[in-house]
Amino acid sequence: MASPVNPPRGMRDFLPAEKARRERALGTIKEVYARHGFDEIETPVVEDFARLHSGMGGDNEKLAYSILKRGLSEEDLADAAEASDALRLADLGLRFDLTVPLARFYASHRGELPTVFRSLQTGPVWRAERPQKGRYRQFVQCDIDILGERGPLAELELISATTAALDALGLSGTTVRINDRRILTRLLASWGVEEHFGERALITIDKLDKVGVDGVVAELGELGLPTDSIADSLHALGAAGWDLFDGPDGAPAWLDVPAYEHLLALRAALPEVELVFDPTLVRGMGYYTGTIFEIAHPGSGSSVAGGGRYDGMIGRFLGVDVPAVGFSIGFERILDLLPVDADEGRGGVVLVHDPAAAPEQVLAAKRTLLESAPRVRMERRPRNLKGILGAAAAAGYSSFATLGADGVLGEQRPLDL
Amino acid sequence: MASPVNPPRGMRDFLPAEKARRERALGTIKEVYARHGFDEIETPVVEDFARLHSGMGGDNEKLAYSILKRGLSEEDLADAAEASDALRLADLGLRFDLTVPLARFYASHRGELPTVFRSLQTGPVWRAERPQKGRYRQFVQCDIDILGERGPLAELELISATTAALDALGLSGTTVRINDRRILTRLLASWGVEEHFGERALITIDKLDKVGVDGVVAELGELGLPTDSIADSLHALGAAGWDLFDGPDGAPAWLDVPAYEHLLALRAALPEVELVFDPTLVRGMGYYTGTIFEIAHPGSGSSVAGGGRYDGMIGRFLGVDVPAVGFSIGFERILDLLPVDADEGRGGVVLVHDPAAAPEQVLAAKRTLLESAPRVRMERRPRNLKGILGAAAAAGYSSFATLGADGVLGEQRPLDL
Repeated sequence: MASPVNPPRGMRDFLPAEKARRERALGTIKEVYARHGFDEIETPVVEDFARLHSGMGGDNEKLAYSILKRGLSEEDLADAAEASDALRLADLGLRFDLTVPLARFYASHRGELPTVFRSLQTGPVWRAERPQKGRYRQFVQCDIDILGERGPLAELELISATTAALDALGLSGTTVRINDRRILTRLLASWGVEEHFGERALITIDKLDKVGVDGVVAELGELGLPTDSIADSLHALGAAGWDLFDGPDGAPAWLDVPAYEHLLALRAALPEVELVFDPTLVRGMGYYTGTIFEIAHPGSGSSVAGGGRYDGMIGRFLGVDVPAVGFSIGFERILDLLPVDADEGRGGVVLVHDPAAAPEQVLAAKRTLLESAPRVRMERRPRNLKGILGAAAAAGYSSFATLGADGVLGEQRPLDL
Repeated sequence: MASPVNPPRGMRDFLPAEKARRERALGTIKEVYARHGFDEIETPVVEDFARLHSGMGGDNEKLAYSILKRGLSEEDLADAAEASDALRLADLGLRFDLTVPLARFYASHRGELPTVFRSLQTGPVWRAERPQKGRYRQFVQCDIDILGERGPLAELELISATTAALDALGLSGTTVRINDRRILTRLLASWGVEEHFGERALITIDKLDKVGVDGVVAELGELGLPTDSIADSLHALGAAGWDLFDGPDGAPAWLDVPAYEHLLALRAALPEVELVFDPTLVRGMGYYTGTIFEIAHPGSGSSVAGGGRYDGMIGRFLGVDVPAVGFSIGFERILDLLPVDADEGRGGVVLVHDPAAAPEQVLAAKRTLLESAPRVRMERRPRNLKGILGAAAAAGYSSFATLGADGVLGEQRPLDL
């Protein structure tokens, strides 16, 4: 059993230093996205149960926390028990991503939004996953989405803004892997994957990074697919660069040429981005319809951001088609990559006051210091002054001043310990 | 039934203009509190069910949303049905305030926190109340608390910081009503209220603002209390100022003199604050033990912030006494008082591009503008240019530039429509 004072399993408290670090990183991301013309919105963290379980969230729907209906009757309970169906007792749930709420939001407010809507959303989401290192049950997502833009400008803006946000965080050396779902579909067809195996084959290929070509081929073999030719194909694809049109035979037979030309155009428009074509890139969600991309950073084994085009989904609530592309930064992952910096440059004065000084004199001294200092932290004079001042320096404070029992405020001195 | 695209009942979506307004107000509050030396922390929005229902939350516990246990067995369901007890099916819940989580947080992390801990917490809380104007089921609280300080310095810092935060928001003309629970207790005793009626009498007196002296006296009469003398007392108290020691008979008999002297000392130390002594001020929560206060603003019928000393509560998880004082800003209420300002002074350029311009040229133009502009919003050239530019001006953008079909970027022109 968890200790009675710990947060719920898989969830975290943030102490001041870590909270400040998170706020700075989130602030940097939000500032870059706002500069790039994205407008922040907010939706409730709770959505109707039926909406969360409408099939748009893929496997994440199974991980959703459900909220008990209020005012349940004995009859409700008996009915649920009889049907062995606890979910009859829930009418709301915690969101497991920001995309399902965005689709609902857009359907509700489309008339109040611009024709092309550039959305920025950040906030916690919840998934009842098995807690493990770096995986939490409450975690923050940072999403930008462009709704209403069918052309490649949407992909360009998203990739440009997200790489700029990562640069602003000091995460340089990123690589953007890019693919198109149509290329993937055609590749699978060239292997002889029949349509009803499509989803399962995608899940397998998605593991390429983890299990390697042999692992993937073995799994595909279980589906009765020709392992030799797939292994050859995967090895060849591993070396695939951007020069697929330059081979001796022109474009390879498996390549969806128009989709590939679209990727070439994106690449030409993004000279500042390290764009890598990866025909085996899958991205988990079933709703992607076109371009897909994710960002790798040398410091992380898994991607730090990912997204793609999902033209079919937003329109489901509206009954009309709305083109959409989204990019999500894995906020918890990038935090692990950022240096554990002190709250540098923030400054501030520590007011160390004698326990015998009158409270109104202490407050008056604080008020005086606040006239020029960016912030003031008060400390009753302790036995161990060094410990107090060291902690303050670590929190970015830059000077201290003492207040005697007589209420006289001393000079400010630098906190260079 | 709610429309399938609306947020859950009593909860809200925030469109860009309103979201920006909320973020600005929250940013101002957090900035002032940080200046005053409060350190921001964060706890999960979810807490263990037992913790949320430990009696510390008063009536709010009844309004808590409960989260269904995962992996419920048929047996669990049958047991709950047999006992007619839906809550057997919940193991977590959404927090209904920030104080219960703070108590749990402090107990968990006390060793990592300074002896006197100045906490700042902001975030949403949830209560299943009947939705009505200005009352929501998800709303934001902004709390500061000082833990570990027994002396009046804690009250002084809280009142000083909170009035400074409201000033920074432009909410001037505020009044701080102040009282002490010990004064109230003694007042009730002077009326002959027996201890077992205490809580009920407090709830009645708390309605003084709404139902007036007559209403309160009538309700107290139902408890068998002497209505005439209470009515006289309440009328006299209504005129009570800060001069209670100056009457012909010295201090009135009902007055807890040490507690009152404590309030006089607070008043003397806060010359910049309009402090009003109100011996009938109650504040709802049962956990208050000493000073209580709330802030009134001429634009609002109810208080915009409130708090007090609750020395007994934090220690409940620890088994030791921890003095504590808190102040909570009613964020949703103060938002109603703030002007619906444009996002002034933020600036930015609208890039109006010809639909025929090549995507890479449009992106390059955006990149060029971003070198000097604080932000860039892209718009495909519409039929109604005025509408687009008017919306941008309302969002604080200050200029626009056009990009022709030939990819040539025009001069920036001011958005003075």
